[in-house]
Amino acid sequence: MKISIIGTGNLGWHLANVLEEAGHTIIDIYSRNSQQAKNSASKLYSAKGTDSLDFSDSIADVFMVAVADDAIASIASEIILPEKAIIAHTSGTRSIMDLEACTNPKGIFYPLQTFTKSKKVDWSTIPICIEATDVATDVTLTKLAESLSKFVYFLDAAQRKKLHLSAVFASNFSNHLLRIAKELLASQDVPFEILKPLIIETIDKALINGPENSQTGPAIRKDLQTIQTHLDELRLEPQKQEIYRLMTKAIMDNKSI
Amino acid sequence: MKISIIGTGNLGWHLANVLEEAGHTIIDIYSRNSQQAKNSASKLYSAKGTDSLDFSDSIADVFMVAVADDAIASIASEIILPEKAIIAHTSGTRSIMDLEACTNPKGIFYPLQTFTKSKKVDWSTIPICIEATDVATDVTLTKLAESLSKFVYFLDAAQRKKLHLSAVFASNFSNHLLRIAKELLASQDVPFEILKPLIIETIDKALINGPENSQTGPAIRKDLQTIQTHLDELRLEPQKQEIYRLMTKAIMDNKSI
Repeated sequence: MKISIIGTGNLGWHLANVLEEAGHTIIDIYSRNSQQAKNSASKLYSAKGTDSLDFSDSIADVFMVAVADDAIASIASEIILPEKAIIAHTSGTRSIMDLEACTNPKGIFYPLQTFTKSKKVDWSTIPICIEATDVATDVTLTKLAESLSKFVYFLDAAQRKKLHLSAVFASNFSNHLLRIAKELLASQDVPFEILKPLIIETIDKALINGPENSQTGPAIRKDLQTIQTHLDELRLEPQKQEIYRLMTKAIMDNKSI
Repeated sequence: MKISIIGTGNLGWHLANVLEEAGHTIIDIYSRNSQQAKNSASKLYSAKGTDSLDFSDSIADVFMVAVADDAIASIASEIILPEKAIIAHTSGTRSIMDLEACTNPKGIFYPLQTFTKSKKVDWSTIPICIEATDVATDVTLTKLAESLSKFVYFLDAAQRKKLHLSAVFASNFSNHLLRIAKELLASQDVPFEILKPLIIETIDKALINGPENSQTGPAIRKDLQTIQTHLDELRLEPQKQEIYRLMTKAIMDNKSI
């Protein structure tokens, strides 16, 4: 397929590269910053970088809008597309209606993964969630998704929103807990690597047996003495202490369910 | 070496088995519950189950106290050991002084891992933290640890306490976040498995690049609109909402450091 990418952020960059690897042709790369658009395009086989949203002469079949959530609607209202081209955004939180200012067939192509430019990811295992305003668009976006990943899901807006929210807990908040752990260790000159086997086993158990069957530690044991020792140890770090108190209470409350 | 295990909980069970696999001989298995002691002992090569703490006739060199933190001191005050035998507890939080009622050489042998009876773990990668009251005990416990794992650490009491606290954040609290994620998905009939690649990549990135360089999501982007949508979505679940608010604030506050 012939595809254009709107946006040169982490996701846009990964998407352009993996689509090209999968045999598709990237036609246009758009960024507000003309130089950035050209830089990104120059790393691809035959893409053209541009800072104009007038694509009336483009030969692309699908335009992927991979920009910040807040910018989707304004892109949709300014963009000019060839008559039959599909416009799809890549956001987990935004509705298909964010694209309504554009009269072309509309869809959502949401890959559930955390992207950083410096780290290659294995797209074949990334869940891609599809939504579309019509059957033909659904078919096209599904084909595109299946050319990248073995895991294609059809989620409605409510499901996708919940998925995005759950990903914030599972990924963003977990990462912050690891940051706290690293800071606590650093204060006693203990290397973060010491936690690696524990972290890997924790995740492994939660994924295999379910997190509801895998909880260990002082909170689930209602070991109040250890909990108090930990809270005392955190007395000079009120935010970490508050997180400790709240998470411990949540685990204790959950036990009885 | 000849080893006796005090306690038949998760850790006691794993320890007895892996020590036997590593070529050591398990002499005694103690539990307050005589039947449980005998059951556990019967699964080992030549161990004897008992509910008595009088080990004056035992031929074991090392007694591993793998019981609940609160029970360590009372075990130490009741136990009767052969003259030169070492007593070591396996707790991450308790001091070596919890053993002071026992006059034998004392140590700590703390394996940093989360154990469940049903799941075998790879001991060769588990960090084992050693502390001892004298050099001979240190040497013996270190040899024992090295017979199980490639990663033996010498941590003082303050370091070990901080390590245990950091493990609660990294393991217990992370597991609870995964539980919340699973519950959110279940409310919309989305399978938990969809999060698996994201979770694995998140942990991978945090371990390779450091969690402080890996944060993504609405909080670090200060995407207030998405954050408000998420808080609204959680309005009927006040505890999850409170966790969301606190973790988001913590990530935002940390950004400026």
